[in-house]
Amino acid sequence: MSDSPADLIITGCTVLVHDDQERIGFEENATIVVRDGVIESVITGAEEAEARQRVDARGQVALPGLVNCHTHAPMVALRGVAEDLPTEEWFNDVVWPIESNLTEKDVELGARLACAEMIRGGVTCFADHYFSMDAVAAVVAECGIRAHLGEAYFSSQGPQGREKSLEFALRRRGAADGRITTTLAPHAPYTVDDADLAATAELAREHGLPVHLHAAENRDQAETSLARHGVTPIEVLRRTGILDTDVLIAHGTGILDRDLPVLRDATGRVAVATAPRGYLKFAWPTTTPVRALHDLGIPVGLATDGAASNNSLDVWESMALTALIQKSTTGDPRWLTSRQALHHATLQSARAVGLGETVGSIAPGRRADIILVDLTGPHTQPVHDLAATLVHSARSSDVRTTIVDGRILMRDRELLTIDVPAVVRELGERTPALLDRGHGRRIQEYDT
Amino acid sequence: MSDSPADLIITGCTVLVHDDQERIGFEENATIVVRDGVIESVITGAEEAEARQRVDARGQVALPGLVNCHTHAPMVALRGVAEDLPTEEWFNDVVWPIESNLTEKDVELGARLACAEMIRGGVTCFADHYFSMDAVAAVVAECGIRAHLGEAYFSSQGPQGREKSLEFALRRRGAADGRITTTLAPHAPYTVDDADLAATAELAREHGLPVHLHAAENRDQAETSLARHGVTPIEVLRRTGILDTDVLIAHGTGILDRDLPVLRDATGRVAVATAPRGYLKFAWPTTTPVRALHDLGIPVGLATDGAASNNSLDVWESMALTALIQKSTTGDPRWLTSRQALHHATLQSARAVGLGETVGSIAPGRRADIILVDLTGPHTQPVHDLAATLVHSARSSDVRTTIVDGRILMRDRELLTIDVPAVVRELGERTPALLDRGHGRRIQEYDT
Repeated sequence: MSDSPADLIITGCTVLVHDDQERIGFEENATIVVRDGVIESVITGAEEAEARQRVDARGQVALPGLVNCHTHAPMVALRGVAEDLPTEEWFNDVVWPIESNLTEKDVELGARLACAEMIRGGVTCFADHYFSMDAVAAVVAECGIRAHLGEAYFSSQGPQGREKSLEFALRRRGAADGRITTTLAPHAPYTVDDADLAATAELAREHGLPVHLHAAENRDQAETSLARHGVTPIEVLRRTGILDTDVLIAHGTGILDRDLPVLRDATGRVAVATAPRGYLKFAWPTTTPVRALHDLGIPVGLATDGAASNNSLDVWESMALTALIQKSTTGDPRWLTSRQALHHATLQSARAVGLGETVGSIAPGRRADIILVDLTGPHTQPVHDLAATLVHSARSSDVRTTIVDGRILMRDRELLTIDVPAVVRELGERTPALLDRGHGRRIQEYDT
Repeated sequence: MSDSPADLIITGCTVLVHDDQERIGFEENATIVVRDGVIESVITGAEEAEARQRVDARGQVALPGLVNCHTHAPMVALRGVAEDLPTEEWFNDVVWPIESNLTEKDVELGARLACAEMIRGGVTCFADHYFSMDAVAAVVAECGIRAHLGEAYFSSQGPQGREKSLEFALRRRGAADGRITTTLAPHAPYTVDDADLAATAELAREHGLPVHLHAAENRDQAETSLARHGVTPIEVLRRTGILDTDVLIAHGTGILDRDLPVLRDATGRVAVATAPRGYLKFAWPTTTPVRALHDLGIPVGLATDGAASNNSLDVWESMALTALIQKSTTGDPRWLTSRQALHHATLQSARAVGLGETVGSIAPGRRADIILVDLTGPHTQPVHDLAATLVHSARSSDVRTTIVDGRILMRDRELLTIDVPAVVRELGERTPALLDRGHGRRIQEYDT
């Protein structure tokens, strides 16, 4: 241990820890020492060492920061514009026509509002899949959150789409003091053709980049793909080489039984992001097959999707809903216990965004992405089973403090790096232009 | 209007209102005037009249207070003791053995903690179905919330159970300055025999009391009842005369198609309380058939059940989950819109607990049970569709102020009538005795 003062010492908290078999446990009355953005030690009892900053966290639980493994952050600007609609109408009639109005400034404002929401909800890292991603990267740099960013593209853009995605990924990789990691981001197998996917896989290998895309989003997509092309979306990923890369698949509620051996035999690191709230809201017939993916050893990270469908970026809610919907859809109340849900929220989510060795656990050597959760409210008392209290009683609003890379971004519910009233005001001024659908554009068919 | 000062004036808010066809609307920049616990007027613009108390509610939305239509409030003491278990093990192996330790003091402390949680979550009235209900009534009187209370009984208690329930209902009816209404509370058709249910129906008619009970809780119960007795639980309610009373049925996820004409032909006022979180957690195969009940004109109120199963008393979450689960189970994203969810949360919930003319709407003449919801947080901005913002983006933690009968019980998130740390401390001291299952009692089979 260095003789110089630590950067941050958090005292008196209960810490969620993983044992060497990744089982979730809790250490009481612990002290966390942070230096140079890294967790230096987690010890029991008090720590008298000097520190530039100290946080007294008595009555609070320290968890690894949550990771939103699939979102379109700037879409918070569209929160609530398209309600109670089937997926196709939602996208073609409302969301896409509005998205085609989006300027880089709108993306910047949306990303800033989204980061405010996520930091307040205990999210320390998000995987964003959208357009004008330089604007998002700038917001990430400014507000201190961590992000895994990909510039989305369709084959309808021609090769320029793919090239722009690669250029962004190479240029921004490691930006914001290393808090930004990047990915190639083809939209989906039904909007990016096989040749383009194969070229993407080739670029991923050549440049050591991962791939983040939508695939097998719902059962309809899988069945339409089978009927039209004789292969499932997952089989398209195999034949184009995408499954030989490190790939993050968004949703996967349309993963079929025949896809399971395909996923098992993938030579790349495959992960899936689940955003269960939206599947309920769109009335999709299935959810992500978390149990089958678990049996294959494929990590499933938690996500919210964009707020235009999910209405929030509340990953805490995704954790609770994943537990509840897994019980309900498998018919097994013993499946997906609170500890399993916490495993998804921590190590599995970190792995899904390629940060499995970097964040996702409060342990020496990991980056100091930590949230402090207050359990003194009447809705979280008494505590008979801390894992259950966290998953089923606590809410994102119980996160009091959010720390990324050792820097405090929210303290006692106060955001330190984002001015919410200012961004809400600026976004409000742009709303009439944003919502204008008079142009009649419906350029991207959201269809297989 | 009286010349004397009003008791309370709330200014500058947006008010949820119902039109003469009960459609939900919003009046902006409104002022609500309260006198003698009653809403005197809702007007647009400022109101210069004098008032003993004024609340500046700019940026906030005033809603009718939420009603928790079915709970066992004192069971918050057991929050998290029995996790990830099937219903029978949950009840027989853990919950009932612990409940048999409960003293009147435990019930009092549990009820106080529950009221704190509910007031903080915007709940202004709860329908409680439990034991030692005098202790609950005393807490209700003390903390200022509204409640609809019933002393539960089983036939295994002999006629004394029913008599005690009646005696409680008559003695406490209209207590706490009229905030307490009462009900007869047989446990369920599988724990209360037909003769006892028939006697209950008779007492209800004789004394003008309603009946609140569990029935057709899940599909298993309905099928077991059919196999053993040749009738469904709902048909048991008909043949015993319970459906000729004003009856509140908890859960009803086991209501079968053959029950629908039975419910339609009921001569009493029938309502159902839905607590969807617990159905997911127990992995029950169905949820409350809200759409079929809607088509029969039967109100469905929102509920949480007890926190030993649901892990919280968060009615706001029940509102969101009802919308989501209805979409998912009917396969129709257009069914149960946000406005419909708000109708369940307001007038339908008020009707379910027999207060359809008294609360459930912010309108002159109704009791002043009002909550103020802050929508300035980043997770609720921008507001393109206020109903959707309330149902799908806002959370119970966004309730800033809770008012019952014109009295402020929580102001700016601060509880004014309950000392949470004191009740948590007292409850903690009793936990070892409460959780002791060494006695081996499993006296009440939770079975049909």
